[in-house]
Parts: sequence; structure tokens; C-alpha cells
Amino acid sequence: MIRAGIIGATGYTGYELVKLLHSHPFVELLFTTSESSAGLRLNQLYPAAPALELIAADQAPFEDVDVVFLCLPHGVAAPTAVAALEAGARVIDLSADFRIADEETYTSWYKTEHPAPALLQEAVYGLTEFAREQLPGARLVANPGCYPTSVLLALQPLLQANIPAGTIIADSKSGVSGAGRAPKQHTHFVEVSGNFSPYSIGRVHRHLPEMEQGFRFWNDAPPKLIFSPHLLPVPRGILSTIYVPLAEEWSEDELRSLYSIYDDEPFVRLLPAGELATLAHVNYTNQCVIGLTLAGNTLVLTSAIDNLVKGAAGQAVQNMNVVLGIEETAGLLSGPAPEFAMQQMDVA
Amino acid sequence: MIRAGIIGATGYTGYELVKLLHSHPFVELLFTTSESSAGLRLNQLYPAAPALELIAADQAPFEDVDVVFLCLPHGVAAPTAVAALEAGARVIDLSADFRIADEETYTSWYKTEHPAPALLQEAVYGLTEFAREQLPGARLVANPGCYPTSVLLALQPLLQANIPAGTIIADSKSGVSGAGRAPKQHTHFVEVSGNFSPYSIGRVHRHLPEMEQGFRFWNDAPPKLIFSPHLLPVPRGILSTIYVPLAEEWSEDELRSLYSIYDDEPFVRLLPAGELATLAHVNYTNQCVIGLTLAGNTLVLTSAIDNLVKGAAGQAVQNMNVVLGIEETAGLLSGPAPEFAMQQMDVA
Amino acid sequence: MIRAGIIGATGYTGYELVKLLHSHPFVELLFTTSESSAGLRLNQLYPAAPALELIAADQAPFEDVDVVFLCLPHGVAAPTAVAALEAGARVIDLSADFRIADEETYTSWYKTEHPAPALLQEAVYGLTEFAREQLPGARLVANPGCYPTSVLLALQPLLQANIPAGTIIADSKSGVSGAGRAPKQHTHFVEVSGNFSPYSIGRVHRHLPEMEQGFRFWNDAPPKLIFSPHLLPVPRGILSTIYVPLAEEWSEDELRSLYSIYDDEPFVRLLPAGELATLAHVNYTNQCVIGLTLAGNTLVLTSAIDNLVKGAAGQAVQNMNVVLGIEETAGLLSGPAPEFAMQQMDVA
Amino acid sequence: MIRAGIIGATGYTGYELVKLLHSHPFVELLFTTSESSAGLRLNQLYPAAPALELIAADQAPFEDVDVVFLCLPHGVAAPTAVAALEAGARVIDLSADFRIADEETYTSWYKTEHPAPALLQEAVYGLTEFAREQLPGARLVANPGCYPTSVLLALQPLLQANIPAGTIIADSKSGVSGAGRAPKQHTHFVEVSGNFSPYSIGRVHRHLPEMEQGFRFWNDAPPKLIFSPHLLPVPRGILSTIYVPLAEEWSEDELRSLYSIYDDEPFVRLLPAGELATLAHVNYTNQCVIGLTLAGNTLVLTSAIDNLVKGAAGQAVQNMNVVLGIEETAGLLSGPAPEFAMQQMDVA
Repeated sequence: MIRAGIIGATGYTGYELVKLLHSHPFVELLFTTSESSAGLRLNQLYPAAPALELIAADQAPFEDVDVVFLCLPHGVAAPTAVAALEAGARVIDLSADFRIADEETYTSWYKTEHPAPALLQEAVYGLTEFAREQLPGARLVANPGCYPTSVLLALQPLLQANIPAGTIIADSKSGVSGAGRAPKQHTHFVEVSGNFSPYSIGRVHRHLPEMEQGFRFWNDAPPKLIFSPHLLPVPRGILSTIYVPLAEEWSEDELRSLYSIYDDEPFVRLLPAGELATLAHVNYTNQCVIGLTLAGNTLVLTSAIDNLVKGAAGQAVQNMNVVLGIEETAGLLSGPAPEFAMQQMDVA
Repeated sequence: MIRAGIIGATGYTGYELVKLLHSHPFVELLFTTSESSAGLRLNQLYPAAPALELIAADQAPFEDVDVVFLCLPHGVAAPTAVAALEAGARVIDLSADFRIADEETYTSWYKTEHPAPALLQEAVYGLTEFAREQLPGARLVANPGCYPTSVLLALQPLLQANIPAGTIIADSKSGVSGAGRAPKQHTHFVEVSGNFSPYSIGRVHRHLPEMEQGFRFWNDAPPKLIFSPHLLPVPRGILSTIYVPLAEEWSEDELRSLYSIYDDEPFVRLLPAGELATLAHVNYTNQCVIGLTLAGNTLVLTSAIDNLVKGAAGQAVQNMNVVLGIEETAGLLSGPAPEFAMQQMDVA
Repeated sequence: MIRAGIIGATGYTGYELVKLLHSHPFVELLFTTSESSAGLRLNQLYPAAPALELIAADQAPFEDVDVVFLCLPHGVAAPTAVAALEAGARVIDLSADFRIADEETYTSWYKTEHPAPALLQEAVYGLTEFAREQLPGARLVANPGCYPTSVLLALQPLLQANIPAGTIIADSKSGVSGAGRAPKQHTHFVEVSGNFSPYSIGRVHRHLPEMEQGFRFWNDAPPKLIFSPHLLPVPRGILSTIYVPLAEEWSEDELRSLYSIYDDEPFVRLLPAGELATLAHVNYTNQCVIGLTLAGNTLVLTSAIDNLVKGAAGQAVQNMNVVLGIEETAGLLSGPAPEFAMQQMDVA
Repeated sequence: MIRAGIIGATGYTGYELVKLLHSHPFVELLFTTSESSAGLRLNQLYPAAPALELIAADQAPFEDVDVVFLCLPHGVAAPTAVAALEAGARVIDLSADFRIADEETYTSWYKTEHPAPALLQEAVYGLTEFAREQLPGARLVANPGCYPTSVLLALQPLLQANIPAGTIIADSKSGVSGAGRAPKQHTHFVEVSGNFSPYSIGRVHRHLPEMEQGFRFWNDAPPKLIFSPHLLPVPRGILSTIYVPLAEEWSEDELRSLYSIYDDEPFVRLLPAGELATLAHVNYTNQCVIGLTLAGNTLVLTSAIDNLVKGAAGQAVQNMNVVLGIEETAGLLSGPAPEFAMQQMDVA
């Protein structure tokens, strides 16, 4: 059995991870921590949760576990990663601290010195489908951001083939759990219900440099990105509508054929022609589904994930599985089916 | 007093119009019709409505009113318009029948012969702010579509100044009332709640030719449009996020100055720099608010309206006011304030 | 013109009051205060609000206004009332401070000394329909709680006629705005959406003594009350389902006839036989609608109000109108119609 | 492996059953039928579903399966049950056809002759926890209604001990999936969102005789029931708030001790003193949780289930497990944890 611990188990990402690891066939969950709720049990915060004891992070026995998951704010995660690594555990970090490989870029976007720059080169950027060579045996994995997961999985086949002919636009919409569990004015039910609002649009959101870094991984002359996140009045799920300018006349079939690299992927799926991605395809699963529509010389991609699963906790478990050499789908395939459904609309 | 009638008063648009006309200081609402509910009273369908009698459309006394509003499906509206005009009434048509001035374009997009082509040239396209010369005294007004209203009001200052340097992308999101009141699988509460879904994206939605026609009104070399509508899990409101490529380096201030044409408009407002449009700005009002964000050589506009008010019934009343020469804001300014609110988010 | 001021204008109740007073034909709104947001303008908090200046409460010029509305927490409201009264203004207090006439009862339920016991006898309990004799000219009005308004208006005709034959049960459901604007864990969108939860059930909620006090006003042997509030995943509205045991065999018609006292009321309405109250009847209006269903020897009442309007700000304006001798419906009748609708269901 | 088939797999209950049986460790799902969608695959209706073929019911090979689940309207289910039984399959009927043991009661409430009265005595009423003696080997199981499951599990310990001293009131609230998947006006998103509405209150809902029948099973002088269902704006979940009059002074501890019969139950749980049942406790699980609050001589129970799981498909699987002698929790325990959470509120 793999022995695991979670630092920060009471936020939405941490709790999602508890649910996945708690029912993972090869994992024993040894500890769960919380700063604000240490001393309580998890079901005092989440009524359907198991009654796990919540301890303070500084009481966490890193030396007793094989892997530590960090569900912490950026800046706080990196020092904890150092401590866990020193105790001999592997670390899967769900914060932003090790996603940006370039220290200067990190500093300029996060307005702070990097807390552990020596680890930046070692950290593996864990977009699992494109990190299978680096992940096995890795000590430190930077779990990708939720928006970047939805955007990069959709674009990667195009970037590899050098298709984009100009600035890419990603118009993304996220459920409210992406804003965290700490109550804020803008996550109050009365403010969100019936509303819909863009925020941090253009080139200012911190996920932008992470996505453009991904572009550079697979492309020598990477396009620029315009990124517009919006807050959706739903608890969970991300849908990114992505616009890619094309230089020459491609047929939809030619473009679709580039996505055959996903044919055997358990968690990424190109939808049939004419079908568009929706939250109903993916919520409560570790799936990313991608729709592809050609409109003149613009390619429109729709890419959907559950922000808490494939966009966070699910991908973290997937990464752990690959790091430790067990079945990549373990603990993920039997996941909950979605609670709702949506017939494709025939509307004009 | 202006005597008015509504053909099709029980759909969401028709009911919104009832509410506006019922409290309009200069209007007497003489009749309200319904095909499916003739013989009932309006409050049997809408519990908070006044107990207006619903009659069949063919019982409507067109000759007794000054103006008839048509809230009918396309194809059905045009013959009714003919009958109302012949009886001497003016017509404000909220369907698509007279929005497309070119008969052939209509036929190819609506897959049917136009039912009254002789009226196409006379009909005034009632995007009120840009039709003030043609509206006074007009016999027939084509009330714009909801999506086109949100997109054209945001783009018009740029089109006039010849700013767009390539394909424009409009990523629009609409509340469910836009899909009509007749129950469908895709408007079932269980299908919509928690979901978010694109539909008819690219260059296939029927509002596309209407918007590109608007481009041509104000621009000699009009750009192409990519239009992606999405269904939002809210009852009402449209937010369009619009991406405009720029040829040369514009400052945000230069671009903002183009919007000074709206400075004295009662119903269109450019938001201060840094503020983005949300549904909370506009729902239950006849306002269109526009946010402007420059991101490199892409201009990102956010434009919000209430689809049932400025996107339909409110603009129809505004048009009636201008046609008949009364105060343009009559019956609209004292409109309900929105029921919710949203602090601008400080999220990165 | 009546000159008015609002202490605490940025909570949900305060903002609702701003909207009503701002469009009231006989009121000039002289000041709006906020402790947390003094120095800002109201539209920085509510994007659709007018740009009213927010001042600190201790800067409020009580001496310049005819009436002051207090939208403050209990305990804080009473001393402010004293100051406003001393400055010569009338006070309409939307807090709980003057609702309970008995000082000891207040102390035992609110766990604190009453801050201004000398005023308790003078304060008029402003359930408007039953306070028309005491309100004209009153200096201090205690605006009723939201739940009590929905319950007392439904029960009063029965209490006067001595109908209830045992313990009354009120099973009430309220929208989230009733929990206030300050963000809390239990008002976070993710916690509320898809959930439904009872709280403070039985005989422990602070609105219980207020309701039982109302029973005593109109009945010599008042029944006991069991009161169960629940949190509904909607922004606004209260529906109370009330169960009244009957001693003898009453016909539904006999019971309905007791409600004829409401026949001429502008804001209270008994629904026709077979129709049940819903939020769609009342939201965004100052209406209370009441459904009456006889089931054996139990009478089931359904009573709906908008918690922010008839349950708070609307009733406060109604009380002001009566206190100052102007038309009772001024500023209230032209209120917004509800945004949604509900056909009576035919479900078994 | 158990071979199973589902008649009526495309409604909300049928689809929930597909999800459970598809991942059940001991079940092979041999066929799924649909009248309206025969010829399609299930994922054409539910985008996250497996691509199961949908056949017409009259093509279903009853003779090849061990058990057939019927998710059909009442009246249609009974003849299908006859056919399946004749082919040698066991039947778990999720309709109302065999819930009411008394033919005359069925006829008077369902306004039709019973289609298969000869089977009424054989059918086992499958409230699993109270049917463990009759279920093993049963040929025909009547799966309880959703509301009755929430009410009877909460009341049974009291009924057995003869505690209720008068009319019981069940004020129940259900998510919209309980109204079925066929689109109706009253399930349109725009009608439901922001609304809350009672329906069929008093003694007229068809689940009333089913509940009173349950009362008689366990009590010689069964109390009467007043039952008030309400439509909640959530996709799923039922919360019943139940009021039981008490004859003598009971302590809460005495009453709580009666619920020790559930101590070893995997799917029924009495909450600790002071905790109330919410949808967040149970959604997406087969759990029923019960809160118990004593208020003078009224006992207030709160009982929550997921209407599609413990209230329908989950209890059906639980019944199948007991009928066929396999582990009662098979296919149910590893079920999805709920997607949301709710801290107990501290509100007065």
C-alpha cells in the first residue's frame, strides 16, 4: 500500500483529494491537516465526509509516508515541499509554486521571491499525458492549474504540428469552487446566483504565463495568448472556448486527425464532429473532452474538465500513479458519474 | 394615450412587454393575445401578472390601436404585420422577419421564402441609438435580436472609425429565457442546473448574418465575425465577450474616446477603465454596459444587457417612444433595479 | 418632500430600501451610511446602484431629516434610535431592538441588556395592516421580522376568531439574502447551491417570541408555536407552510370568509381555493399572498412574501407612509414585477 | 454474475440505475430499453453515459436475465411485470403499481383498475431495512416511493413504540428530478430557478396512502398523516421535516434510544443531538440521515435522502442484493461522495 498524506485537506481541492485517496485501492491515507480546523474531524466541516482527524501541518509525520499532497496557497507550499522532501517523501504540489520553471517569471507574476528556487529545475510539470517520461520516480511534481489543463490539452496537438497562425484566444468559464472555500463577497450565494462575470481578462491572470510556458514546450515559435476567465454560477466545472487562427486552408478532418494522439488516452477524448464539450460531459470525472469546429480560417475548440478533478485532485492522483508505477487509472476510473445530463441542443 | 396591443403575450418576451406597457405612463394596453392560452387570463400563467384577458390573434382589433407589438416566431410574424399595417396600425416586430434587409440572405438562413418581401425595404432596423433618423413616424420596425444588440452596441464606435483589423470574435453567453418558454429537454431545470454549454458556434447561428449586416451599415470593408453562443444557467441576461484585432498600436484612452458618442445616451454606458460588464449591471433594466480592456493588439470588450429588456421588450418600447415622438425613456427609466449585486472581484 | 436618511445602506435590506426611497415620489434621500464602506459610493458595491455617497453613521445629519431608517444589527440600533429621536427625526427601526415589548423577554432571547428600555412602550410594532391606529404620527416604529410578517399576516384572521385549537406549526423557508450580506461559510455559493437545510428549529429561533407576542395581541388564550426555518437556495423570498389544528368541523368556505378583512388591502391577498402561494407570486413586490387548504381537522396555510420587501424594506416604506399621512401605497405599487413565473402544477 | 435488464433506462431513475448496475461488481447489465429513444445509444441522451444500446421494451429478452428493473409509469409497469415473471425473471418494480397492497385503495387513488391484482399479495414492499424477512428469494418487489422512504424510515422507530399521539405532519421538499425527465412547463429552468412552490398538500398526494399503509404495518392504532410536498430549485434530494405530537413528557434521550435499531444499518443513520439533516449529508449516496429535535411536546424529525438513490435506484439495488442473497451493500458503498458541503449553521 502507498502511504499518503494531505497538507490542507479542508479546502475544496483538499476535500476532493480526500474522497479520491480514501477510496483508492492502493492508498492508505495516513494524515490530513488543516490550519484553521486542526483538532476537528473532517465531517464537522463536510457532513458526508469520513470522520478523519485534522491535525496541524507542523504535526504531519512526513517521514511515515511515501507521498505528500500539498493543497496550500502559493508561497506557503514551497517551504512545505522542502520539508517533505527532506523527510524522504515524494511531493505532489497542487499550488502554483513549481509550475513556472523560470524563477524570474515567477517573481514578476507572483510579486515575491521564489521560496525554493533550487527545486525549480527538478520539478516535473505534471500535465500527465505529456509528462510520462519525466514522471516515473520523480520526487516533486507541479500539478498544473485548472485553466491551463483545459487549454493545454486542447491545444497541444495543434502546437506540436505548428498549426496556430497568430494570437490564440481562450475564453474560459469556471465554477465557483475555483475561487476557493474561504467565504468572500464575490462568492456569496446572493452575489453569484443569477449573475455571470468576467475577471482578470486579457493578459493579467496568473495562469497566462503557465499556459504560454506550455506553448513553448511544444512549439519553437509559440503564439501569444489572450485569456479571459469568467465566473459561472455553478459549483464546479470549466469550459474553455478557444479560438485558433489558421494560416492556410485546413479541412476539419485534417485537423481532427492530429488528435489521434489521444485515441488510447483514458482521460482525454475528442468528441465526434458536430458535438461540443459541456460541463455535463465531465463533472465528477477525471475526463477532459474536446470539441472541434472549423469556421472559415478560425478553429474553435471547446474543452471541458471538472476543475476539482482533472483540473486538480484527479490529475494529482493520476500523477501519483505514474510516479509510483502503478496503473495510471487506479482510483480514478470508478469515479462518480455526473449528476446531470444534457442533450445536445438543436437550436439556431 | 397611445393604444397598444400585443400579439403573443405569454412567452417570456411577450410577458416582459406586458409588464412594461402596463406601467407605461402614456400607453393603454388594449389587447393581449395567445394561441395556446386564449380564453385564460394572464395571471393563470404568471401568478404575479395582472388578470388580463387573453384572446386569439385573429380576434385582435388592429383597427383600434396605434401600435401592435409582435412576439411571434419568424415566418408567422410577417403575415400578421401585413394585416396590422393594413388596418392602419404601426408595427413593432420582435421576430426575425424584417431584420435582414436582403431577401436572399433571409431565405438562405431561414430556409423558407420570405412571407412579405415587399415590406423589407420599408422596415427600419431598430437598434434605437443608431436609427433615430429613420424611426420617427415609421410604420414598421424590426426590433433587433438579443445577441446582436449586445454585440453591435459594443462594436459600433469601432466600426465607424474603421478600427477592426481582421476577424472579430464574439463569445456570448445567454440566460435560459432566451430559449423561449415552451418546455424543451434542453431547458429542463435538471439539464441546465450546474451545466454550461456552447451551441451553434462558428458561423451557423441565425444572428450571425444580422450582425454582419450591421457591420456593413457602418463600415465599407466590414470584418468577418465568428460567433459562439453559450447557454448560461441563469434565467436572464446576456454577456458578450468580444475580441477585436487591431492593426496599429492604439492606446486604451484613444479607443475609449471613440465611445464618447454614448455620453448622453440614457441606455448605453461605457464603464470606467478597469471595470468589466456583468449581468448584475443590467438585469431588469434597459441598460447596455460596455467594458473595454486593451491587451496588446487585441481589444477585449465585455457587453452586458438583459436579453428580455434591452435585448427585446425594453428596446421595443424605446423604439415605440421614438416612432411616436414621445420621451424616449418613457416607461423605461423607472424600471426595476436588479435584485442582486456583484462587487468587482480582485482575483488573480 | 419627505427628507429621509438610511443608517446602514449597504446590506441587502439597506440597499433594497435605497432602491425604494430613491424612486419614491415624495421622498428625498438625504444620506446613506455605511461603517465598512464609508468614503465609497454605493455603485462601487452594487454595480447597478446610483452613485450615492456613503458616509459614516456618526456624520449623519439627523437634524436635517424627517425620518431615519435603521438597518443595523440589534443592540446597535437602539442607541442610534435614541440619537435620531433626540435630533427630532422619526425612526423606523428594521432591527429587532424594539419588536419585543417586554424587556425581560428581550434580555433572555438576545442575551443582553436592552440598550434603551425607556422606549419600549412607545415603539409601535409595525405590522402595518394591524397598526393603522397607532402608526399615524408615531415617533418610533419597530419594523417586524421577515418570518413573523409571513406567519402573522396568515394567522391573524384565525387568531382574532379564536380558531386554532392547539399548537401551531410554521415550517418556513427563506432565501439566502435573509442571512445577510457579510460572507459566511454557510452563505458561500458552493455550500448553498444544490443544498437545502433546516436550522434553529423547534422553539429556539429569535423570531419565535416575536410571533408568540403577536398571537397574544389578538387572542386571549394564544396557542404555542413550533417554528422551523430552512435555508432555500434562492436569493430572496420566504414561503411559510403553516399547520393549524381545528377544534370542530369547519368548512373551507367558513374559514376563507374570515380573510375578507383583507379584501381591500393593497398588499395582502387570499388566493382562490385550490391555489397555493409560491415565491413567484411575490418576489420583488410588497405583496403577501396566502393560500388556504383544509385537510381534515388541520388547516394548511401557505404564505409568501419577498423577505427584503414586505419582509423588510417595503413594509418599512409602507409604515413611513402611514406615519406621515401620505398615500400608503406611495413608492410601492409601481414596484418591479417578478422576473419569473410558475404555472400552478397539476402533479400527483 | 447476476444478469440484469432495465425497462425504461432513459428517465432520471432509469439512468441512475444504469450507473449503479454498470459499476456493480456482481452484475452484468444485459439490456436497457427506451420507448422514445429505441435505436439510439444512451450517451446520445446523457453525454457522460456509457454507449449502451437502447432497445424497444418488446424486444427485451426477459428469459435471459435473472432480474428485471421496471422504471415505468404506473399502469404500464404491472403488465410488464407479468411478462417478466412469466419468462422466469425476478422483478423489481420502481413504479407505484405494487406498493399499495389493497386493490380498492389503488383503484381509488390511481383512478384505474389495477392491471394485475393477482400479484398484489405476493409483492414485497421493499423498504429494505424492514423487509429483510420477506425479500430473500422474492419474485416481485415493490420499490417504495421517494417521499415515503424519507418519511417511513424516520417514523418507524416511533410507530413501533406507539409514540405518536395524534396527526403527524410531514412537510417535504424535493429536487426537480422527482418530477421526471419529460419537459413540462413547471420543470422549465426559468420557472423553477429562484422559485419555491408547494403542491398537492394536505391529503391528496398519491404517496399519502402508501405512507399511511406503512403506519399500519407497525402500529395498531396508526395516526393520520398530513403531507405537504414542495418543489425545491435543486436537481436532486429530499428533505422531510416531520412533526410528531407526543402524549406524555419524553426526554430527547429516551426518544433517541428508540433509533438504536439503526446502529448497525449501513444506510440509515441518526445524527448526533443538535445536528439537523440536510441534502449535503446524502446526495449521491444511498444514505438516509435523520435528525431528532424535541420541542416541548412536539418531536421534530428531519430526514434526508437522495430521491434518485435511496429514494429509487439505490434502494432498488439494495433490494436486489437482499433478494439474491449477496452482500447488501454491494455496488452501493463505493458510491460517489457528495459534491458540496455544508457547515452546520450557527444562526439565530
